[in-house]
Amino acid sequence: MTTTPYEAALARISPIDEDAARSARAHHERLTKPPGSLGRVEDLGVQLAAIAGTDPPPIPAPAAIAVFAADHGVVAEGVTPWPQEVTGQMVANFVGGGAAINVLARQYGARVAVVDVGVATDLDDLGLAGAPGLLRRRVRAGTSNLAITAAMERNDVVAARDVGAEVAAMLVDDGARALVTGDMGIGNTTAAAAVIATLTDHPAATVTGRGTGIDDARLRNKIDVVETAIARLPSDVRTDPVAVLAEVGGLEIAALAGFIVGGASHRVPVVADGVIAGAALLAAATDCPQVLPYVVAGHRSTEPGASAVLTHLGLEPVIDLGLRLGEGSGACLALGVLEAAARILNEMATFDAVGITHKD
Amino acid sequence: MTTTPYEAALARISPIDEDAARSARAHHERLTKPPGSLGRVEDLGVQLAAIAGTDPPPIPAPAAIAVFAADHGVVAEGVTPWPQEVTGQMVANFVGGGAAINVLARQYGARVAVVDVGVATDLDDLGLAGAPGLLRRRVRAGTSNLAITAAMERNDVVAARDVGAEVAAMLVDDGARALVTGDMGIGNTTAAAAVIATLTDHPAATVTGRGTGIDDARLRNKIDVVETAIARLPSDVRTDPVAVLAEVGGLEIAALAGFIVGGASHRVPVVADGVIAGAALLAAATDCPQVLPYVVAGHRSTEPGASAVLTHLGLEPVIDLGLRLGEGSGACLALGVLEAAARILNEMATFDAVGITHKD
Repeated sequence: MTTTPYEAALARISPIDEDAARSARAHHERLTKPPGSLGRVEDLGVQLAAIAGTDPPPIPAPAAIAVFAADHGVVAEGVTPWPQEVTGQMVANFVGGGAAINVLARQYGARVAVVDVGVATDLDDLGLAGAPGLLRRRVRAGTSNLAITAAMERNDVVAARDVGAEVAAMLVDDGARALVTGDMGIGNTTAAAAVIATLTDHPAATVTGRGTGIDDARLRNKIDVVETAIARLPSDVRTDPVAVLAEVGGLEIAALAGFIVGGASHRVPVVADGVIAGAALLAAATDCPQVLPYVVAGHRSTEPGASAVLTHLGLEPVIDLGLRLGEGSGACLALGVLEAAARILNEMATFDAVGITHKD
Repeated sequence: MTTTPYEAALARISPIDEDAARSARAHHERLTKPPGSLGRVEDLGVQLAAIAGTDPPPIPAPAAIAVFAADHGVVAEGVTPWPQEVTGQMVANFVGGGAAINVLARQYGARVAVVDVGVATDLDDLGLAGAPGLLRRRVRAGTSNLAITAAMERNDVVAARDVGAEVAAMLVDDGARALVTGDMGIGNTTAAAAVIATLTDHPAATVTGRGTGIDDARLRNKIDVVETAIARLPSDVRTDPVAVLAEVGGLEIAALAGFIVGGASHRVPVVADGVIAGAALLAAATDCPQVLPYVVAGHRSTEPGASAVLTHLGLEPVIDLGLRLGEGSGACLALGVLEAAARILNEMATFDAVGITHKD
């Protein structure tokens, strides 16, 4: 029996290094500041040390953002006013460097890898044949309409997860020292809400949000769609993330689950973006809870499902500025804080070294 | 009658440019993202446009951080376990580049100007004669004990404010495109709490915090000290910030008030750090409410007085990570987000330019 890239990554994941974490905590007490006065920046430094297995931790830069793009058959239900063709058009925008994530990535010195894991539009027709920075790994041309049938086959989920694990390995191999989850897919907050409702056992209404900013009528319809979809799942499905993703997920969500596991298996921090990453994170953590200490919640999206995931997994976000764009944009804004957390442990003077009197 | 640098700066402050703000808001609607989906990053971009008077706004980099250092006679009351000599020692640490603010400033490409506006220790004795990056502008060798007498004379406040206004002008003149408030002074959270209690009309207990992390007994004593100090102020003192600062303030707080006004007068964003900056901001805004639109609340310090100021002035912080170090550290972490806000308006593609279908 062959081992898939995702399974191989899962098998390689080891616990984070508690000795390095202890060392970083003790190190923080010696730095020229009141103990604990850098708050969560200190915690992030400890986490980075534990992930890398060394204190001080390596600087988590450069980062690489993988934007997994895919389409969703559920757009037929009117869950969003944006036409499906926008997914492919935005892929072209990512390749051209004009999207928000490109701007932020340039600022933070990060690479953007755009991955077609299931865009319905033929990207060649958009002039993207051979486009640099675009990885053509389409598993299928979008999902089926999850309101009425399974979104995809189990083997599609497995293939998409493998794409994610392989992209993570490639980016780390190319020098990335932190990975950022990105996504694009018109309709994908509907799929994410269904996955989150299922894996956190929340009702659809509490985890389904306005996505790009839909009105009340569309939101009621979207909640109905999510309710209908999850109603057909067997009650024991929560232990089988492949089944959940196949029934109500999306190709980019499955790919991101693989990407998260892949990053953890390479002992680099994985900075999770919003609600799409949250759905993927739940799926990955169901397979392997040991991925969680490798994950940094980059930001709190305004999508209610994103907060449900943070609470469910006990994660605190770095940034909380009301973003709901996706693409990895919120997570990218956390990169400066993450780098600061490492630099503090690498560069700050100790009380002893500079002869500062400690408190009485 | 001569005009002081602070008064000259006050006289130069003009309203922010509402036309540029409107232009930036409209510009955001044309960028390739759902309207509003970048949340407060969009608001910050609009604020930067209004400050500079142009859309897109200039990139607010490089930034410069001014760390105003001063001592506080109130340490005689046992409000902190850290000895007064640490203020001067930390000045040496700033000059040597080993403090947290140095690490963060290097990461963000920002300059650190260290300003002795009232350190009790003779800095020459610490080997700092002629030290590069250190501005020797001492108004007096620390304040008197505000628990029993006025912290300083009114003319000391005026002189310290002028130092702040002059440092702001110098840094902008040298190329700074954003200013960050920094501070160092053992005992200064006590003075800040007294200023904030007075100018926001809060009781001492709700705005006095643990500073560097004091225990319950010290906190009770610190609250008593603040209560005693503010009890001796005349009831109409709130309209006279010079009187408030002279009675219960600090030299670095007065200097920061001047620095904030100075930055606003030069139309650059002033990124405010924590509770010390908050006290200074209240004093500056009492003189001139028009400074407020030039201010970005960099972060929410854990000090309760800092939150009281944010609420009182209607400011929302960029970063909220449980920091309480001071030095400008929390504000410095906001610089990446501020720069992103400007870059989005400068670099993102519009729907029309890249031919993306808008929502129906």
